[in-house]
Amino acid sequence: MSDAAIYSKQGFGARSGFGQRAALLVVDFVNGFNDPDMFGGGNIPQAIANAQGLLAAAREAGAPVCFTRVVYADDGSDAGVFRLKAPTLGALTESSHASQVVPELAPLAGEYVLRKTQPSAFFGTDLAGWLAFRRVDTVLVVGATTSGCVRASVVDSMSYNFRTVVVADCVGDRALGPHEANLFDMGQKYADLHESADVIAWLRTHEA
Amino acid sequence: MSDAAIYSKQGFGARSGFGQRAALLVVDFVNGFNDPDMFGGGNIPQAIANAQGLLAAAREAGAPVCFTRVVYADDGSDAGVFRLKAPTLGALTESSHASQVVPELAPLAGEYVLRKTQPSAFFGTDLAGWLAFRRVDTVLVVGATTSGCVRASVVDSMSYNFRTVVVADCVGDRALGPHEANLFDMGQKYADLHESADVIAWLRTHEA
Amino acid sequence: MSDAAIYSKQGFGARSGFGQRAALLVVDFVNGFNDPDMFGGGNIPQAIANAQGLLAAAREAGAPVCFTRVVYADDGSDAGVFRLKAPTLGALTESSHASQVVPELAPLAGEYVLRKTQPSAFFGTDLAGWLAFRRVDTVLVVGATTSGCVRASVVDSMSYNFRTVVVADCVGDRALGPHEANLFDMGQKYADLHESADVIAWLRTHEA
Amino acid sequence: MSDAAIYSKQGFGARSGFGQRAALLVVDFVNGFNDPDMFGGGNIPQAIANAQGLLAAAREAGAPVCFTRVVYADDGSDAGVFRLKAPTLGALTESSHASQVVPELAPLAGEYVLRKTQPSAFFGTDLAGWLAFRRVDTVLVVGATTSGCVRASVVDSMSYNFRTVVVADCVGDRALGPHEANLFDMGQKYADLHESADVIAWLRTHEA
Repeated sequence: MSDAAIYSKQGFGARSGFGQRAALLVVDFVNGFNDPDMFGGGNIPQAIANAQGLLAAAREAGAPVCFTRVVYADDGSDAGVFRLKAPTLGALTESSHASQVVPELAPLAGEYVLRKTQPSAFFGTDLAGWLAFRRVDTVLVVGATTSGCVRASVVDSMSYNFRTVVVADCVGDRALGPHEANLFDMGQKYADLHESADVIAWLRTHEA
Repeated sequence: MSDAAIYSKQGFGARSGFGQRAALLVVDFVNGFNDPDMFGGGNIPQAIANAQGLLAAAREAGAPVCFTRVVYADDGSDAGVFRLKAPTLGALTESSHASQVVPELAPLAGEYVLRKTQPSAFFGTDLAGWLAFRRVDTVLVVGATTSGCVRASVVDSMSYNFRTVVVADCVGDRALGPHEANLFDMGQKYADLHESADVIAWLRTHEA
Repeated sequence: MSDAAIYSKQGFGARSGFGQRAALLVVDFVNGFNDPDMFGGGNIPQAIANAQGLLAAAREAGAPVCFTRVVYADDGSDAGVFRLKAPTLGALTESSHASQVVPELAPLAGEYVLRKTQPSAFFGTDLAGWLAFRRVDTVLVVGATTSGCVRASVVDSMSYNFRTVVVADCVGDRALGPHEANLFDMGQKYADLHESADVIAWLRTHEA
Repeated sequence: MSDAAIYSKQGFGARSGFGQRAALLVVDFVNGFNDPDMFGGGNIPQAIANAQGLLAAAREAGAPVCFTRVVYADDGSDAGVFRLKAPTLGALTESSHASQVVPELAPLAGEYVLRKTQPSAFFGTDLAGWLAFRRVDTVLVVGATTSGCVRASVVDSMSYNFRTVVVADCVGDRALGPHEANLFDMGQKYADLHESADVIAWLRTHEA
């Protein structure tokens, strides 16, 4: 029996669907994750290119937009276990080029640019409340990496009971095996997977 | 370049190591996840069998032990997005056979049996504080499924800055592809992977 | 200058107002907090009596209702610092009379009855997500004690960005000094204070 | 019966005590809370003066030190309910003078300076994990205001199961009624109250 068949037989893989009001969450599309000499590579450049149209559509629809950046203190005072596993993360500091949102997706004034130190955009941040204040019930997730901060953010988004959509052509990873494996996990258990064209179409009929 | 080589080049996959005091976290080793007609199958039975020796060693070492169970209200009052994705989870209620810890690993009085509704053992629970109160700095994780509640718990354990160890032969999954893929992700970014024999040896030299 | 004048001069005490959809949060109105020989006394009985009309109005309006109970494990396995400060809390266990919701406000099937171990209804629980899933943006708080679990829940409700209303005649405390002092703090900084008659009137014009 | 007698009869007011390793948490001792034309006044200047000796002792003992600042985005993108209740908080931005730690207590390199947007130092931050990583089991709290961010931080510190000590002569408030009322609440239920001289003496015998 295939993996998908096992999941289907056990009742996984249903759709959670779209709700009434969506926000766009752009996870760690910062220069350092678009640089193959740092944390980038794989299909990340294509995911960034694809996300441009979705970002434009979200803005046109009036959807709240949040960008995350990984930011550590210059003096290492907030380092913890994550930096033991990946010491190179310490290069991502407030003013480093590597931790700025990529120019293709530059935030506008009033869009939320959120600092984080852990994989999930929700962990140790006020993102859940930021979404609740805007009566968001659906979170559209794009970003990098699929197997890392996207996955962690998606699990938390679902755990906070937001209907969660992974925009499959707008998430990327440095390595394609983990990218595919995590799309499978997320689609079966935590989120619906959609292409950006479909999400853009939905946004056009659900302006805020 | 292999996936592992890419991760290595970018600085991932270092060891976070053991700290000074460990707790054992037994994630969702309940009857329903040991039943291939419910949420079980794959290598879960072997993982449960392997976990018995580790549990005995943890008890002998005086390590705090926490078991998690997925428990939903009988009347569905706490249902959310997770149950939209997997409606069959609703069978896991306070008194259902499916939601009781497997008899091979029956909790002793004074061990913590924690109810949860989301994938992570830390989400919407007081587990982080339970560990801090015991001055735990290292969390040994066993349970099911590797690609589900184990992975989610490991990400949160690391995010709360506990040195996290996935006991590789004591975690199991209904499908082996996701099991392997998630071991890779966790080992590269969030946790150290060890066999139970090595963890038992460590426990014997670190009694509480 | 009076305390109120100082707060006003510094910009506190504005109204956060009602939003579009309210839930009723009934904090720890359990038998043990309505028994002066346990944790009760003061104006708690009157607050319970006053809350009956509000509960009926919330149900009629279709507002989600959540009741909290303090519940500790029978074997003490989840005890922490709170029980060092107040060891008598250990009497509140799953099946103890003291930890059941008072009969005057008995929950109906489908209403959420939430176990907690800490003062705040949000701490170590999934309440924030439960509210978000229902697109609640306004939390109406009643319960006991004003200076304890009500205050802690109100601070967290506001911190999660829910517009928070303390129903002043439906919160009670074992001692009236702390009751009044905490109403002042909450009204200045975290929540709007309203009488139940006004909240009932609002609910009647905002059915779900 | 006095308030204190009621609490005593019901089992509150016990000591949670000191543990083995303490951190010093300096809550919102920033210029804006030391300026009576902004959020200051009352006994805050005296609390800052008293905190200097304690900070020196904590440093000498090798205790981890964390300072909090309230920081909102310049463009208002992270505003929520707290700023509806107190719109003047918007003046506290990354580079504003008002949101910098007071010069009497200037942080040293390697000490953690934590941004927050809500009352509690733990809410939407990674403080709990920062403490756990350092195996802290005791949190010494100083800062402003007693009835606001100190109280909220103390409730969360206790809820995360850290033994919590409010250094009574090192916390201050713009108004003395709320200051006293909140010291009473915290001492009865959440924390032990000690004078700085006693805490300094404890630190001298517990170097890290």
